[in-house]
Amino acid sequence: MRISEFGGEDAVIRLIGEKYGAAASGDLLLGIGDDAALIRTGTKLMVVTTDLLIENTHFRMDINEPYLLGWKSAAVNISDIAAMGGEPGYAFVSIGLPDIDVETVEEIYDGLSDACRAAGCALAGGDTVGSPAGIVINVTVLGEVEAALAARRIGASVGDAIIVTNTLGDSRAGLELLLQRGLNDARNVSAYLVERHLKPVPRVREALAAVSTRKVRSMMDLSDGLSADLARLCLASRVGAWVYADRLPVSPELDRVCGLLGWQAETLAASGGEDYELLLTCAPEDAAEVVNAISSVGTSAAVVGEIVDGTRPLLIDSSGAEHSMPASWTHFRR
Amino acid sequence: MRISEFGGEDAVIRLIGEKYGAAASGDLLLGIGDDAALIRTGTKLMVVTTDLLIENTHFRMDINEPYLLGWKSAAVNISDIAAMGGEPGYAFVSIGLPDIDVETVEEIYDGLSDACRAAGCALAGGDTVGSPAGIVINVTVLGEVEAALAARRIGASVGDAIIVTNTLGDSRAGLELLLQRGLNDARNVSAYLVERHLKPVPRVREALAAVSTRKVRSMMDLSDGLSADLARLCLASRVGAWVYADRLPVSPELDRVCGLLGWQAETLAASGGEDYELLLTCAPEDAAEVVNAISSVGTSAAVVGEIVDGTRPLLIDSSGAEHSMPASWTHFRR
Repeated sequence: MRISEFGGEDAVIRLIGEKYGAAASGDLLLGIGDDAALIRTGTKLMVVTTDLLIENTHFRMDINEPYLLGWKSAAVNISDIAAMGGEPGYAFVSIGLPDIDVETVEEIYDGLSDACRAAGCALAGGDTVGSPAGIVINVTVLGEVEAALAARRIGASVGDAIIVTNTLGDSRAGLELLLQRGLNDARNVSAYLVERHLKPVPRVREALAAVSTRKVRSMMDLSDGLSADLARLCLASRVGAWVYADRLPVSPELDRVCGLLGWQAETLAASGGEDYELLLTCAPEDAAEVVNAISSVGTSAAVVGEIVDGTRPLLIDSSGAEHSMPASWTHFRR
Repeated sequence: MRISEFGGEDAVIRLIGEKYGAAASGDLLLGIGDDAALIRTGTKLMVVTTDLLIENTHFRMDINEPYLLGWKSAAVNISDIAAMGGEPGYAFVSIGLPDIDVETVEEIYDGLSDACRAAGCALAGGDTVGSPAGIVINVTVLGEVEAALAARRIGASVGDAIIVTNTLGDSRAGLELLLQRGLNDARNVSAYLVERHLKPVPRVREALAAVSTRKVRSMMDLSDGLSADLARLCLASRVGAWVYADRLPVSPELDRVCGLLGWQAETLAASGGEDYELLLTCAPEDAAEVVNAISSVGTSAAVVGEIVDGTRPLLIDSSGAEHSMPASWTHFRR
């Protein structure tokens, strides 16, 4: 049976995790199934994550720049470390290259290097090989976290406040502009939204500020959209969630472009992927403290809903009516 | 300037290492440029390696089997951990998949899983994505080593004995059979040589036995052939080397097939890649102890030459005449 008939990548990921993933035991505290693995090393935990990016699956060079490709390749992994409350330490970059310009390779590494440096991460190793077709980049990042601060997808409790950082939907809107108009025209419409898609900033300090309150009960990063990622958090924590549509944080720029082009900002915020913002929960009485801790390092945060009995997230409109969350737009070819 | 005009992959690897690689500092004891990176974590060192394998660059599915592809993808990384004297602990597997049969994916993971289990390594994480063209596999392995036992490419001293494990050239002969005859016919000629190419056994216990003598001065694994890899060890240690052609260990099966097909066993042993045997040096008076330690875990080892003043390895024939080492056959498309 082909992967496409079997239920696609998600079904294969579940199969691999269940059949081949190591169970937590000994020093392996957390294996396949969260943003990153956790391994005990002395007094702290090591946090490990890896992401594979393939040209024409995850990125298209005609609507990207080499520097930004490098930046994002590192940033999405650093975001996974942040999502556990960890501090990134070391990056290992494997790259498969067609016979492209060496200057292009240097631009990719300039971006990788800058994203690593911005997060305090050293480029410590890797592998460089030829690729017969497109560019392939795999980044593995090792970080560390104090055991008491490590945040997982498991841990959300009924009544918890649901918090997200910054604004949602910008990245997906930027991608839509890129797909419809190409790089230059998309930037003419909104350089901000394009940058939000091509140059995400992992929320390392924000995550550390949040977990340092010791009030965070569950956390992950938003890579596939609030709709899909909150569903994963609900599944892991065996809870449901209400998200209040009118509390979804939307940037003024997204509002402007949605007005211009007739798009729905709320739908983009609820389901658009690649935000690389944080999604976390804490007891409702701790929400102000957690929001303030995040704001203190320069990024806004907002309570967008609450954890409830149930099995999946629902969107609550301004009249109080329940709706399914809009389906995520994610991991399609672009 | 295109990569091909710039000096190929090796030149790009040097550029990346020199321009972007983190210098050893703090807990990063060794970055880009050896078999693996070394990071201090408490009382031991963490050993980290990563390898990217791309279909039609590193493997061809028409002369391979999914199980063996999985096995080898893990084995070559485990071999890098062994090459530092380390014990493998955790593997992280990123895989890019076209829309192939799910059974094929399971066979790949059966192989990955078996190679990891054989080396005491847990599959702790990864990433699974779609790939528009061929299969892409990146494996990162974390291991650990006692600081006093970690073996590097640097450390070979003039006068050292040069030791290799088992026999050399089998893998390259197996590849040649596969390329010329296809999988079934190649196995009919020599199932042994084909297996030596498709299912290398990383020398984890052998390496640990060797470094546990505390007599090993430098060590690496043979991935690109003795000729290329000994040149790297010489460069790192700033020495030369004499390899005695008549001491190169050749399997009876390689001798037989070379007799049958008119190939030169000595050339294959000196330059054939993907042996995944160990190359190490120690003081000449310690050679017997190191060889015995390796033999005690079931694999033969032999002194094949000595470290001398100089900058590169030379091949010494039975008359005592010096020759350049034959050029390596490595990393071509297959």
